[in-house]
Amino acid sequence: MIKISLPDGSIKEQPSGVTPMDVAKSISEGLARNVISASYNEETVESTTPLTTDGSLVLYTWRDDAGKKAFWHSSSHILAQALEELYPGCKLTIGPAIENGFYYDVDFGEHTLTEKDFTTVEKKALEIAKGKHDFKMRSVSKADALSLYKEQGNEYKVELIENLEDGTITFCDHDTFSDLCRGGHIPNTGIVKAFKVLSAAGAYWRGDENNKQLTRVYGISFPKQKELTEYLHMLEEAKKRDHRKLGKELELFTFSQKVGQGLPLWLPKGAALRERLEQFLKKAQKKAGYEMVVTPHIGQKELYVTSGHYAKYGEDSFQPINTPKEDEEFLLKPMNCPHHCEIYNTRPFSYRELPKRYAEFGTVYRYEQSGELHGLTRVRGFTQDDAHIFCTPDQLDQEFKEVIDLSLYVLQSLGFENYTAQVSVRDLEKPEKYIGSPENWDKAENAIINAAKEKGLDYVIEPGEAAFYGPKLDFMIKDALGRSWQLGTIQVDYNLPERFDLTYKGSDNEEHRPIMIHRAPFGSMERFIALLLEHTGGNFPLWLIPEQAIVLPISEKHENYAEKVLKSLENHEIRALVDARSETIGKKIREAEMNKIPFMLIVGDNEQEQGTISVRRHGGEDLGSIEIDAFAGLVSEEINSTLKAFKE
Amino acid sequence: MIKISLPDGSIKEQPSGVTPMDVAKSISEGLARNVISASYNEETVESTTPLTTDGSLVLYTWRDDAGKKAFWHSSSHILAQALEELYPGCKLTIGPAIENGFYYDVDFGEHTLTEKDFTTVEKKALEIAKGKHDFKMRSVSKADALSLYKEQGNEYKVELIENLEDGTITFCDHDTFSDLCRGGHIPNTGIVKAFKVLSAAGAYWRGDENNKQLTRVYGISFPKQKELTEYLHMLEEAKKRDHRKLGKELELFTFSQKVGQGLPLWLPKGAALRERLEQFLKKAQKKAGYEMVVTPHIGQKELYVTSGHYAKYGEDSFQPINTPKEDEEFLLKPMNCPHHCEIYNTRPFSYRELPKRYAEFGTVYRYEQSGELHGLTRVRGFTQDDAHIFCTPDQLDQEFKEVIDLSLYVLQSLGFENYTAQVSVRDLEKPEKYIGSPENWDKAENAIINAAKEKGLDYVIEPGEAAFYGPKLDFMIKDALGRSWQLGTIQVDYNLPERFDLTYKGSDNEEHRPIMIHRAPFGSMERFIALLLEHTGGNFPLWLIPEQAIVLPISEKHENYAEKVLKSLENHEIRALVDARSETIGKKIREAEMNKIPFMLIVGDNEQEQGTISVRRHGGEDLGSIEIDAFAGLVSEEINSTLKAFKE
Repeated sequence: MIKISLPDGSIKEQPSGVTPMDVAKSISEGLARNVISASYNEETVESTTPLTTDGSLVLYTWRDDAGKKAFWHSSSHILAQALEELYPGCKLTIGPAIENGFYYDVDFGEHTLTEKDFTTVEKKALEIAKGKHDFKMRSVSKADALSLYKEQGNEYKVELIENLEDGTITFCDHDTFSDLCRGGHIPNTGIVKAFKVLSAAGAYWRGDENNKQLTRVYGISFPKQKELTEYLHMLEEAKKRDHRKLGKELELFTFSQKVGQGLPLWLPKGAALRERLEQFLKKAQKKAGYEMVVTPHIGQKELYVTSGHYAKYGEDSFQPINTPKEDEEFLLKPMNCPHHCEIYNTRPFSYRELPKRYAEFGTVYRYEQSGELHGLTRVRGFTQDDAHIFCTPDQLDQEFKEVIDLSLYVLQSLGFENYTAQVSVRDLEKPEKYIGSPENWDKAENAIINAAKEKGLDYVIEPGEAAFYGPKLDFMIKDALGRSWQLGTIQVDYNLPERFDLTYKGSDNEEHRPIMIHRAPFGSMERFIALLLEHTGGNFPLWLIPEQAIVLPISEKHENYAEKVLKSLENHEIRALVDARSETIGKKIREAEMNKIPFMLIVGDNEQEQGTISVRRHGGEDLGSIEIDAFAGLVSEEINSTLKAFKE
Repeated sequence: MIKISLPDGSIKEQPSGVTPMDVAKSISEGLARNVISASYNEETVESTTPLTTDGSLVLYTWRDDAGKKAFWHSSSHILAQALEELYPGCKLTIGPAIENGFYYDVDFGEHTLTEKDFTTVEKKALEIAKGKHDFKMRSVSKADALSLYKEQGNEYKVELIENLEDGTITFCDHDTFSDLCRGGHIPNTGIVKAFKVLSAAGAYWRGDENNKQLTRVYGISFPKQKELTEYLHMLEEAKKRDHRKLGKELELFTFSQKVGQGLPLWLPKGAALRERLEQFLKKAQKKAGYEMVVTPHIGQKELYVTSGHYAKYGEDSFQPINTPKEDEEFLLKPMNCPHHCEIYNTRPFSYRELPKRYAEFGTVYRYEQSGELHGLTRVRGFTQDDAHIFCTPDQLDQEFKEVIDLSLYVLQSLGFENYTAQVSVRDLEKPEKYIGSPENWDKAENAIINAAKEKGLDYVIEPGEAAFYGPKLDFMIKDALGRSWQLGTIQVDYNLPERFDLTYKGSDNEEHRPIMIHRAPFGSMERFIALLLEHTGGNFPLWLIPEQAIVLPISEKHENYAEKVLKSLENHEIRALVDARSETIGKKIREAEMNKIPFMLIVGDNEQEQGTISVRRHGGEDLGSIEIDAFAGLVSEEINSTLKAFKE
């Protein structure tokens, strides 16, 4: 008998040789139906692997990342079999699971796999899946493995095996197909009910451009057809919502090869949107007791040596800026904190004056490899909605709560409803890794956890994930397509106050170290706007959107009236414009739809006579013919429903 | 007889040997009384120099810079004589006129000249002046000059003479005193009626720190005692108004050695002030049809090679920023214009869409030698209230007028009343110096001059002062102390549209080049705030000042009421604070005065009972006991009197 412990802490005594699937069945038939993979003592095993020692077992279903990985890894075997059957003589190389689906790199010889072939491959793969073939692992000697692939003439597998350590090598068999494999499969092919080849692209063998170019076939599979349909819909939506595409269409930002990659230029509509976001946060921050500061975008290298940022960013980032006399060296600032520390150091503070909360929309510059740049989400210069709070240890609790309040206010005002929090705390077993006293760490971690609890956040605690300088809380957002983004962060810092020798005079008349909190509810303006674009598909909240309404005169003779309507809208502080082109009203509506303008105000004879406007919502809803004042009321009502004042 | 032409174009025939003073007398006795120096054929002459050829004569009075220069140069002779008589054996070196006054560098041997000695020196100098001694030039041979100073043991003069070319050397004599001198004096010492030694400081012989340290004695003199009194008062005021001093006292900005020299850090009150200025201008600009953009603070070196800025700033400024892979080179942007050109180039424009007006509060970086840095007026990083207008040649006229309107609006809203304009046009005789067609230059220059005329500006035209790329108009401001500052600028540019190949489609359906206008009504936020500080002495216009009012409870028991008053002021959007320290009301008032807070609101028993506040204006005026609403009315009335909406 062996002892098998389960994640819920229970221990099962089972005969040696029992399989994970047996254990699942011993718990419940329902569980057994859903189990698709397992790990034993933190190593991936098959659900059919006999367990012969004591250990801890985790059973995975489709809902676990490990379950999905096994599912997609197994699906790549199915893909490989299908390709081999359809294109005899093609040479298989490697085929891992990836974040969404899997791929297989194949040398097709003379054949070029094109989109036309995808359906055939999918059909064949599903046919194989339906056979409900078990995945079975089998050990072979290195010599046998080599001779097998040499016989097949597959130089890629030969190379792979030659690079493996001597000893036993495993293959996985299902149906008539065998492949070199480390393991980690679902029980049988029958679980795969939906199968899609997504794309085929060139990929060099082993990623080296001196090697032969293979074809990387991307696929994805699901246990239900419905899930595939949803996924493909999501892909379509994501494509439409790509912030790079929308940013261009809506004229928000652009990039210039001459200015440089990864350095966005904000066009008028984008700059105005940024300004509205900034003013929105400034207003809330003012109420929350923040003070704005302005600091330069460069600083002497020594400043960042003091802060430790030079050690962190120095070699891999933008290089130091020399001066003609060469007696000074500057750096583009990678962070605003050292500058704010220097502002704090301008004069002495008493505990009665704390907390000090310095905020800045500070643009920082960090070098990224050009291959890693991506629209606004990965750039070389970005503006953080940064602030640093300098407080006493006793104030940390309250400050943390207020920062969470502010962060939630930001998310709610922008229409985000799905967010969770991750609290990163220290590894209690490695106290030497952290700066600051254990008492202060206790205080800080408790402050964060209490605040998260009190504010009703859905949070997880991650031990050992804290930075060496302090614990933190990160907000994770799910966007409209269910994708997760890491957004705002709140970090406690015991390090910079030491490095900059920051002090305050306590009630005991002695000098003490303040604690610093770094926080940025947006994260950065660039990343946040990218996320907002993809979340809303460009249909920003009404208070934020560049143009709230467009007046559409039916014909030329209604233009004067349209201009009068515009003037009146401006008096109501509604951002609007007139489309006075001599196009059909249908075309004007279509373009306004494309430009994501929330309200189309159609004016013709009737409206002109009655002094009204016919209101059509983006998406098609007809709100009928109303007076401008009524429309203004409707707009402000909608704005007020999302954009409330902070703490009111 | 010789022909002497005068600045008014008239020509006088006079016998050869006539002196400038004779000519003055021939015009009027009044003029002769005021003439203190002269130039002939653009060379400085004495008023007693015999004129023997035809030429053009300019006569200078105290009101001319050249007149002041002669006055102060002559005064330095008087100072030298006084020092020589008071400190026999002291060695004179050089003694030029400077912008305000003059100095003489003297080797006093064992003696140290201190402030105690100044009155004695002034007395002696005035005694000499009263003697009405004529200044007379005398030629000597180099050999004689050398032997004279060798005899006196004055190695400095010997060195000076040795470095002069051989030939005739001139001395100037007055009273018993002689000095090596090139000329340019007032007629006699009697014109100097007021004389002040300002300071004495160390100065190395010839500015070389390897040489002996001399004493530089600074002085100033005037034709009237009253002028000296006014000047000394102005100096006192300027000291009090030094923006570096005020900036520190009012907690507006600071510098940090760690961040780097010339890189201001804006403290909360200063950052808020900047923000108010920016919002003020943004609002007016919005009305004037500008669109805000945001661009990065760096750009690829190639961008600035294209724009020509690299050739201009490259070697003497911040050096290029390398990247880890070293395949790209960036520069801190010295100007925003190349970025705005790239924004214009994002998409094609039709003439119907012009003008485009892109505005940005863009922070630029330019290296200055550390010795040249000065508070906020000479920095290494500064934020321009920049905008670039892209228009057709036909629109230039109107655009220029509108830019002048905006500039005047800015000056008037900030309480500047004395401004003039300088219009810099091309040198018609050197057309090869300029880019752009003569027709366009004509158009542009006429546009500027017409606009200046139509707007009633007090302007001067400076031929040949235009940049090679276009004519311009600069605003010159006189501050409260009568000092001149160059502020906002409006420049036409034919160059960058060429270099960036900017185009628009004209009504003829052909591609044309737009014209660019660069403009910045503030100039830069840093320089403007410095000027505003010195102009107002920190007593900013009410709409702009950090704190508009301070509530001063007479004793502890009035604190609650004071807080209620504060709340009520905040509801009226009045920026205020409470001074709740347990200090005497007298001390609180004194400190509020020092902090330049416009209104002190004193609350004691009476006010609390009657629900009023006792209002005291900065400076002492008592406005009596009034209700808060009435006070709010008073504040908004004062604000509205300076801060009107643009174009209303």
